[in-house]
This record gives sequence, C-alpha cells and structure tokens, in this order.
Amino acid sequence: MKLLALDTSSIVATAAVLNGEKLMGEYILNHKKTHSQKLMPMLEEILKSCELSPKDIDVFGVAVGPGSFTGLRIGLATIKAMAQALDKPMVGISTLEGLAFNLIYCEKPICPIIDAQRDLVYTGLYQWQNQQLTRIMAEEVIDIHQLMAVFKEKQEKIVFVGDALEKFQGLIQEEMKDLAVFPPAIVTMPRASSIGELARRKAEKAEVSKPAEILPIYMRKSQAEKQWEEKMRNGS
Amino acid sequence: MKLLALDTSSIVATAAVLNGEKLMGEYILNHKKTHSQKLMPMLEEILKSCELSPKDIDVFGVAVGPGSFTGLRIGLATIKAMAQALDKPMVGISTLEGLAFNLIYCEKPICPIIDAQRDLVYTGLYQWQNQQLTRIMAEEVIDIHQLMAVFKEKQEKIVFVGDALEKFQGLIQEEMKDLAVFPPAIVTMPRASSIGELARRKAEKAEVSKPAEILPIYMRKSQAEKQWEEKMRNGS
Repeated sequence: MKLLALDTSSIVATAAVLNGEKLMGEYILNHKKTHSQKLMPMLEEILKSCELSPKDIDVFGVAVGPGSFTGLRIGLATIKAMAQALDKPMVGISTLEGLAFNLIYCEKPICPIIDAQRDLVYTGLYQWQNQQLTRIMAEEVIDIHQLMAVFKEKQEKIVFVGDALEKFQGLIQEEMKDLAVFPPAIVTMPRASSIGELARRKAEKAEVSKPAEILPIYMRKSQAEKQWEEKMRNGS
Repeated sequence: MKLLALDTSSIVATAAVLNGEKLMGEYILNHKKTHSQKLMPMLEEILKSCELSPKDIDVFGVAVGPGSFTGLRIGLATIKAMAQALDKPMVGISTLEGLAFNLIYCEKPICPIIDAQRDLVYTGLYQWQNQQLTRIMAEEVIDIHQLMAVFKEKQEKIVFVGDALEKFQGLIQEEMKDLAVFPPAIVTMPRASSIGELARRKAEKAEVSKPAEILPIYMRKSQAEKQWEEKMRNGS
C-alpha cells in the first residue's frame, strides 16, 4: 500500500510517501513562503523522487486540524482533489495526534499546543502506553492560563510540542518550572511521516473515508464566520 | 547560526537546514537512486526552498559513519568540498548517535544496528537520561549473535533502529522475544534533522573541525582494502 500524506495545518508544509511501513520520502519546509506557492511543487517533487505518479498512490492521508484555517483549506482542497480525481480513499488525522506521534516512545505525557489566537490554544494530552500512543485528555480549545492551572494540579512532568510554543514557552516555563519539558525544536513541528504512519494504521483497518467526507476540524469558528454571525444578529 | 546537515551513510539520502534550533527544512529520500545522482539536486533544492545559498551556511554537519563505504565517501566529499570552498567549519556526527536521536525522550535503551556485511553489525547503546542522550555501551562492530547474547543477559527491553533491521529483525525477535521493541519504520532510518541538531549542539560549544579533519569512521576495513592487504601478504 502506497500512501501520500500531507500536513499544512501551520506555517510548515510537509509531505511524505510511505510504501507499507517504509518511509520512501519526506519533505518538511518551515519557511515563510505560503502553502499556495510551495505545496504543489513539493508534491510533484517528492513523487518524482520516489519515481511515482499520483495514480500509484493507494491512500491519501491528511492532517485535518485543528490549525490555521487557510493552511488547512489549501491542504485539504489539494489532496481531496487528487483523491477525488483518482477515486482513491482518504484518511484524516488530528494535527494534535500527529504532533504527539513525533516523540515515539517518549516516557512522559506529551501536550501539543497549537495557536488558536489571543490566549487560546488547541490542545490535548497523549501518552505512550505499551508502545501505543493513547489520548489521555480530550482535544479542546482552552485558554493557556486555564491549561496551566490544570497541569499545575497534576504535578507531573509534561513535554510540550506545537507552534504555540513560540508564543507561550516563556509563560509555561514560568508557571510550570521544572515540570515543563521542551524537546529539541526538530520534533515540535508537524511531520508528514507521523501523519502518514497514523493514516497507514487506520487504512490497514479499513478505517478510510471518501474524499467528500474529509472535513477540517476547526474546533472554533473563523474570525470571518464570527463577524458574519454578529452582522446577522445585528440585522445589518 | 545556519547549519546544513547531511547523512548519506545508508541507502537513505537526507539533508536538513537549521537556523539556530529551528528546523527550516528537511528532505529524506529512501529510494533506490544512488547518492551520486540525488545528493546535489537535493542540496540545491533544499537551499533554494529556504531561500538560502551555500554561502549563507555558517556550519556544515555530516554523519561520518559507520555505514556504507560508498555512501559515506560521496556525502563527505560533497559537503567537505562545500565547506572548504566557503572556508566554513564542520562538525562530524556518529551515524549511530544520529539514529538513536530519532527517538527523542524514549524511555528504553536504544540500540542502532547498521549492516556491516555477513553477520556483523555496527552498533552501540544509547539511553535518554535527564533529557540528554547518553551512550551507555561503546560503538563497535560485532556479530549479531554475540550482541544477542549480551542483551539476553541484560534482561531489559531494548528499542532497535537502523538498516540492519531489514536483515536481522526476525533473528532479534526470535532471540529476545518480548524484550525486543521495533518502533515504527519512520524513525528507524537516518534523519538529517537529528544529525543537524547534534551538530548544532557541538558547534555552539565551538567543537568544530576544519573540513580536512573530518574523516569517515569505517570501524572496519573495506573489502577492497582487505583484499589488497591479503594480496600484499601473499607477496603477489
């Protein structure tokens, strides 16, 4: 089974090709260029390097969020179009689970935090138990101060990953002191290989969807939607 | 500090660019094409994607082995030439340490095994202690059966990575039973981001070398060298 996986939920654009369990290729770009410019050339390039064409792909995996609205829309539109055109199944994976999967067999609980604007983060809590990554706290949108209060009560070391570290690492450090662990930055950002491996496991259990069924997980409404609703409420 | 890292010690060709701790980009290709064909285009491509040119790189990091003789020679020749031409420092990193570093904060000891032909493997044993990757057994070339005997005596779970898994996973499983742990294949192969992060840490402590001082670690003689020596001994 050949699987093409994608994550465009943050500033990072990343694509990977798996052949069974084997990672044939992975590209990660964490640079300012927009996804609309870099995504298609990246997909072309990685497939070409693996001597594959889109029709050789059996399953398409994608990070469905939470994350950047625009990033998710571009990524999902692109990969859903490919899967739809080729009539191939898809698997959607939580961006948060993907981030936690970067730290394979990590002994401590892993908390991915993704920027949800202002003081909010998309988050969850994961832990490796008997070589299986298990979610031990529901994924949610939460105020970072409230999350800190929860963790300070637990009095347990927690490993943080995700793009909201850029904004909140100082605050977390101050609040949690020695209980906060910040791993090397090379594993704190999305990796398509993690999304791909998680998607592969679901595909092997036939837990696949039609492209039209794959929807982004926004967890909260976009600024534009909120403004629209407010406008409607005000009857203007 | 901008760092370009490379690992061509196996069939995998991988390059990464770090800007400080931040991973700007990483490419991994695990496909049959030879390094001589794919290495230069990969380096060009990743630098272009990060909007950098070779002269923007401050330090060059490279996996110095052990591993494939030909792979190491191509990789080292390429990156040493770049560093030499630009008069920039280099850092050499053990391929084995790089492989172990793929499993950040893994709770169990990590044993990288690299194919050294016949029943031999290049190996070592690493463990994360207080968020630092520590070598707990010297790197060496050893017969896989002998390695199994050592580990069976330890009676401890060990996580295996590296390309020799392709050849020996069945044997290890049979010998060690539940004590052998095989992680998802996405982390069992070289990643230039791991080499890059290890190189960055050394560079920050000014533990750098001149390009001419960077030598491959073969650990054992190449087949050609052995044949040559035998020929010399036989006086022919």
